[in-house]
Amino acid sequence: MGDDVPVAESTAPRRRGRRPAGEDTKGALLSAARAVFTEQGYDGATVRMIAARAQVDPAMVNHWFGGKESLFAAAVQLPITPQQILETVLAGPVEGLGERIVRRFLSVWDETGGGPFVALMRSASSHDDAAGMLREFVTHALFGKIARAIGADQPDLRASLVGAQVAGLGMMRYVIKLEPLASADHDTLAAAVAPTLQRYLTGDLA
Amino acid sequence: MGDDVPVAESTAPRRRGRRPAGEDTKGALLSAARAVFTEQGYDGATVRMIAARAQVDPAMVNHWFGGKESLFAAAVQLPITPQQILETVLAGPVEGLGERIVRRFLSVWDETGGGPFVALMRSASSHDDAAGMLREFVTHALFGKIARAIGADQPDLRASLVGAQVAGLGMMRYVIKLEPLASADHDTLAAAVAPTLQRYLTGDLA
Repeated sequence: MGDDVPVAESTAPRRRGRRPAGEDTKGALLSAARAVFTEQGYDGATVRMIAARAQVDPAMVNHWFGGKESLFAAAVQLPITPQQILETVLAGPVEGLGERIVRRFLSVWDETGGGPFVALMRSASSHDDAAGMLREFVTHALFGKIARAIGADQPDLRASLVGAQVAGLGMMRYVIKLEPLASADHDTLAAAVAPTLQRYLTGDLA
Repeated sequence: MGDDVPVAESTAPRRRGRRPAGEDTKGALLSAARAVFTEQGYDGATVRMIAARAQVDPAMVNHWFGGKESLFAAAVQLPITPQQILETVLAGPVEGLGERIVRRFLSVWDETGGGPFVALMRSASSHDDAAGMLREFVTHALFGKIARAIGADQPDLRASLVGAQVAGLGMMRYVIKLEPLASADHDTLAAAVAPTLQRYLTGDLA
């Protein structure tokens, strides 16, 4: 743009041709990440694409987030990376999968006080790119990977059913704060919900 | 409107230039509220907008519903009342409850195109009073009534678990639009989800 004179550049909210520093870089990377993950999918998105969209050096992704996995987690406002969840959930017998998922879900989000889960649901119901991120999370980053790791048939349907039960549990516990579910202990909820998740992953759906 | 002649007014389903009375006013306000809340969001919608859409005096909102919040509560029970849902869901053998709930849920919200469900989730994750209305809806207006009607133990826990599964199903289908769940037919989803709801209502949770 030929009319992009220096004075405009110095006052524009979006800097051009200069690398923003610190919090600006993080913010730019998070918003670029949401756009690129949604457009390219979790597997297709690369650090290079996200950095280019944010107009920062790709090394900044590693510097601020430690890599693509953690950048995704930060963009979804997840307290831990999908890879960390995957490791603990897949460690153990297949018949305990449902229980390990519900306990991991509760311990991760309870620890945050639930606030970030509320923010996640608000974003997902207000912004297409946040909905897209959550979609990628359920299908490709986490539940789809679990369904595929155990060689399940219909892995996408199973992943979306697990996502539905887990998202609904979070809605009632952290967003709606519906009692007695909101303050139920983990044993009670694991006993109630784990068999559902187990059936969605390994049971007969027809 | 100069062409609004008496003969037309007396037969037209929507009266123009005159305030409809009683049940007509309530119905007009509810239907206007659904439109305005969906278009403007919970924050953006005003009593004035809704009254204007319904072509009634804003004072009628307070007269019939007690204010914007109560009108919202009435409006989220769309497109039929909890009482109507209750009647169809409770009509039939107890062992078919889960299936009747999931089929009723899907037919009711699919018919709206899902938009009002997105608005509901957005409001519930942004406003304490909207969350409170949904809480009331799950515990008192619908699922708690079902659990009590069949004499279940722990009716509140059972109602909140049913609410969690049903809300999560709606999240994935209408908000996140996660495939294949988003476009799955009712038979597929009933086969997958009805046993979950059935167990939450009549099964062993311990």
